[in-house]
Order: sequence, then C-alpha cells, then structure tokens
Amino acid sequence: MTDLHGLSGRLLAGEQRALSRLISMLERGDRAAADVMRDIDPHTGHAYILGITGPPGAGKSTIVDQLTRLLRALDQRVGIVAVDPTSPFSGGALLGDRIRMQRHYLDPGVFIRSVATRGQTGGLPRIVKGIARALDAAGSDVVIVETVGVGQTELGIMGVADTVTVALIPEAGDSIQALKAGVMEIADLYVVNKADRDGADRMAASVTAMLQMSLTTPEWIPPVTLTAAHTGQGIEELWEKLQQHRAFLQTSGNLAKRRGQHRTQEFLEVVEEELIRRLRRLVQTDPSLLARLEQVAAKDAEPYSSALDFLNHSTLNPELPTPPPP
Amino acid sequence: MTDLHGLSGRLLAGEQRALSRLISMLERGDRAAADVMRDIDPHTGHAYILGITGPPGAGKSTIVDQLTRLLRALDQRVGIVAVDPTSPFSGGALLGDRIRMQRHYLDPGVFIRSVATRGQTGGLPRIVKGIARALDAAGSDVVIVETVGVGQTELGIMGVADTVTVALIPEAGDSIQALKAGVMEIADLYVVNKADRDGADRMAASVTAMLQMSLTTPEWIPPVTLTAAHTGQGIEELWEKLQQHRAFLQTSGNLAKRRGQHRTQEFLEVVEEELIRRLRRLVQTDPSLLARLEQVAAKDAEPYSSALDFLNHSTLNPELPTPPPP
Repeated sequence: MTDLHGLSGRLLAGEQRALSRLISMLERGDRAAADVMRDIDPHTGHAYILGITGPPGAGKSTIVDQLTRLLRALDQRVGIVAVDPTSPFSGGALLGDRIRMQRHYLDPGVFIRSVATRGQTGGLPRIVKGIARALDAAGSDVVIVETVGVGQTELGIMGVADTVTVALIPEAGDSIQALKAGVMEIADLYVVNKADRDGADRMAASVTAMLQMSLTTPEWIPPVTLTAAHTGQGIEELWEKLQQHRAFLQTSGNLAKRRGQHRTQEFLEVVEEELIRRLRRLVQTDPSLLARLEQVAAKDAEPYSSALDFLNHSTLNPELPTPPPP
Repeated sequence: MTDLHGLSGRLLAGEQRALSRLISMLERGDRAAADVMRDIDPHTGHAYILGITGPPGAGKSTIVDQLTRLLRALDQRVGIVAVDPTSPFSGGALLGDRIRMQRHYLDPGVFIRSVATRGQTGGLPRIVKGIARALDAAGSDVVIVETVGVGQTELGIMGVADTVTVALIPEAGDSIQALKAGVMEIADLYVVNKADRDGADRMAASVTAMLQMSLTTPEWIPPVTLTAAHTGQGIEELWEKLQQHRAFLQTSGNLAKRRGQHRTQEFLEVVEEELIRRLRRLVQTDPSLLARLEQVAAKDAEPYSSALDFLNHSTLNPELPTPPPP
C-alpha cells in the first residue's frame, strides 16, 4: 500500500491519476478509501452536481455531450459519471452515444468515468456518490451524473444530485404513466429531447399539465425545455434553467438541506451494503449459520421462519442501543 | 388476529381465500406469516415451478395464457404469479396482456396473483418465493412465475423456479448482447416468440450458435423453441421441452439440489431484508445513531468513513459467532 495521505493531497491538487485510483478503490469496496474520503471531505461543496436520467433512447448522453461543450466554452471544469444500465435488456444504443463523448477525453478540463453494475446488487448509489464527491474535491465546477432508466437503483443514484433532470422523447407515450411512479418526486427539470420529431410540443404540454395537477405547494415549478441535442438546439436554454434551479436552491436554503439529506442517505447505504457483505462472510465462516442453512436446504427447517429465528438469536440483532459517536 | 393454524389447514385444503390472505401477509411483511409458512412447508414439493422472463413486449403473458389453457386441458391445477416490472419505464403493453388472462379468472383450477413492486426496494424475490410455496402447498400442479426484464431483482425472482424460460422476439437484436449479461446462466429454455415475424429463424440460430460457443459441459443444452403465442403455435412443443427439462432435473438429481439452493437463498434474502428493516427502525429510535446522522448531515463527519466506524461500534457488527440452531 502506498501513502494514502499523499493520494488525498494529489487528488486535491486535481491530479487525474489520483482521482482514478480513489474511484477504483471505491468501486472494489476497499476500506482504505474511507481515510481518503475523510481527508478530502472538508474540501467538497464547490461543485454543482447535476443528475440526468430517463428511458433508454432519450438521448441523455448527447445532452451531456452538448452541455459539456457549453460548459467548457464557459471555462468550467466538468466531471462526468456515466452509469451503465442495470438491466441487460436496455443497453442497445449506449455504445454509439458514448463514442460521441470521445472528443472530450483529451480535454484536461473534463474527467469522464463510466461505472458499470457488473451484475452486483446494490452498492452502485454509494459508489456514485463517492465518485461525485471525489470529483468535487478534485476541482470540478460541475459534476454530471448520467444514468439510464428509473428503477430503484437509478432513483437512488439520482440521490447524488443538487438538480435532477429527467429526459423524455416525443414518442414515449407511456413515459407520462411512468412519471406517476416515482419520477415526478425527483425531477427538478424536464427535457423533451428530439424535439424536431412529431409530438414534442404535445409531450411538453402533457408534462406541464400533469405538473399543474399534482404540485400542491409549488415553491419550484419544474420547467419543461425542448431540445434537439444532436444539433445543440435548446442546450443553452437548458443550462439557463439549470442555473435558475441552482439559484432557487441557494436562496431558499434548500441546497444545504438537500445535501445534508443526501449525506445521511449515503451513510445508511454504506451501512446496509456493509451488513450484507458481513452476512455473506458469515455464510463462509460461521458453523452455526452453516448448520442452519443445511437444515433449510434439507427441508428440516422452513426458510422464512428459520431466518427470523436466526436473527433473534444472532449478534446481527440490532435491538440494543449503540455507543455514542466519538 | 384470527386462528392462524386454522388458516394453514384451510390453505392446505386448497381454499383460495386462505391463499389470498397468506399472500397479503407475506406482501406486507407480517411476521405471523412465518408460523403458517412453517406449518405448510412439509406439504410442499409437489408443484413444478416454472419461471418465465424476458424483455418487455416479448409476449410473456400470452405464452403464460396459452400454457395455462393447455395445462387445464390436461386437468392440471395452475398457480400464476405475475410480477409487475420494477422500472416505471417498461410498463407499456402490460395491461393489455393481462386482460387476456381474464378468461382464467373464473376457473377454480387456476389461481392468479399479481405482485407489484410499489416502489419498495428489495423484498420482491422473497415475497414471490413465499407465494410460490403457498401455491404449491394449496395443491397446484404447476406454478408459473412471470416477470418482465432481467435486472438483478428479476434474476432474483427467477431463483424460485425449477425451470427458467427466457422469451425473446425476432426484432430484439440487442437481446443477444443481453444474453451475455447474466441471462445465459439462468436460462434452461429459450422461446423465440412472435415467430410469424421476419427474423425468427435467424434469431433462433443466433441463440443456438451462442449456446454452442459458451457451454463447456453440456449436461443440458437449452433448447430453442419458436412460438407464435397469440395463435397458440408452438405451445405444445414448449410444454414438451419443459417436461423434458423436468425429467432431466429429476433423473440427474439436480431438482433436489436446485431446490435446496433456492431455499438457502431465500433464507439469506429474508435475513438481509430484515436487517435493513431493523436498521431503518434504529434510525427512528436510537439516539446515538441519530447524533451520528446529524454530524454527517452537518459535514462534521464524512458519510463513508463514519458509516464503517458506526458498524464497528454497533451491535449490528456480526463478527461474533452465533448460537447453534435449536
């Protein structure tokens, strides 16, 4: 193991290799990353964290590409976290979209990192939040986190962002249905992309109508922007709306509140993931758990009731209070 | 609370209302379900559990509908668990497909239950496994579990099945890509549905070629069946292949092995889910955890390192051995 405090210093100086190394540590669950994260935490908070999600084919990568171009013209340093989809059945067009990003790879003012699920359950929201914080500490002005779909994992990933943009396309009639299922609660902005196709205005109107019906206390009414990202159309307007949302967050005090909530959420995600990791280790090592699993497999014990009984007799039972923090 | 042992008896006698009641208990995480599950467990094992999954639009519900028709003609009692998709962006055609199932609703030899995710994380594989076991105990000859997509949750759900069928469509060129990502490991059979469309033979050939490349020790070579489920074409052949797989499982000893693995997997899923439930309760009640969360939110502590530190000082730390099973 090399000097981890040296790693923190190099990362804070904006060194991309240090950043890559910390991210790899986060991805593989290396606990030594915790020391670096603690070192760099006081130096975070400068970056504006954007999230963008939506159904496959909505052109999210193209929007991110164009937004990056705009931000670079404004001399902003950009960090990008592209999260690959959870479901193997939604990957189709992804590679082509990513290729367009390549022009930014040689730009030292842009740091791009892809994160794949690699089939593991959980962990992804925690990893993405750590990466975003690392990019922030390394000097990014804007961090963009892009993910496909809006399943539970993707909604969890969006828990990293100051501002969440949901991208839709004119054709996706069922997207409106989808909005009811958890998306509306997280969207701060909507983009109807591919607005040069039929139905874009109708889709924008539907979203607007739906927002009017459901928002009870409209502190912030999510704007709906039309874009045709492959030509760059609408991207400046999108950036304007994003800045308006950022200003709203700051003046209303919601920015600090939201970031605090995201941090406690991340804490709990780490605890959950770690509990499951420790349970899996127990399965390898604990003779009494092994005996129980054999009973269950052999039908000498029923899985559900036996699991509850195991917990009631195990040190995993968290009914007792914990000692105070240091 | 009414008499739960009475509930077990009524369920074992095949009473559909008792079945519905137990399933509702499982869905809402009612611990009293554990007693009933323990009562009925020795009476399970008769039913043949089929899983069917695949991308949205592959016609899975239509296949299930036709298969049910065939099984009823053979005087088999059928239980169906239709799991609604995790992602709100993949629901489109679902309702229409389900309507076709309605003709079976009045048939006392068919029990149909839909399970929706309702936005909760986890729990679904555990619930589906419990429901399948309840349907088995209630006298089903065949239990069919249908789910959309092949994300982590769906792969977990398929961990209920003796035989897993993956449904594909001719057009889905990227399905072949998808096969690489976790699907091939679980598929015992493939169906290329909508075989009256162009490209069905080509798709079947691609799947077959891919299987030949990747199977190292072909104890069982997954057959590829062409169906046009909306006309019933290919359904009898599918049932034949399913029976062949069942016979293979039985003669090879793999059936008992697979079921044992599924039971221990379910045990661990219950433990994980319960640990997370208990953690969430601690967040409401434990003063020292609350103090820590406040530190994290206020940036006096860093989320990742603080979470690891919390676990090391908490009763949730499972490093100690557990007492032996009763």
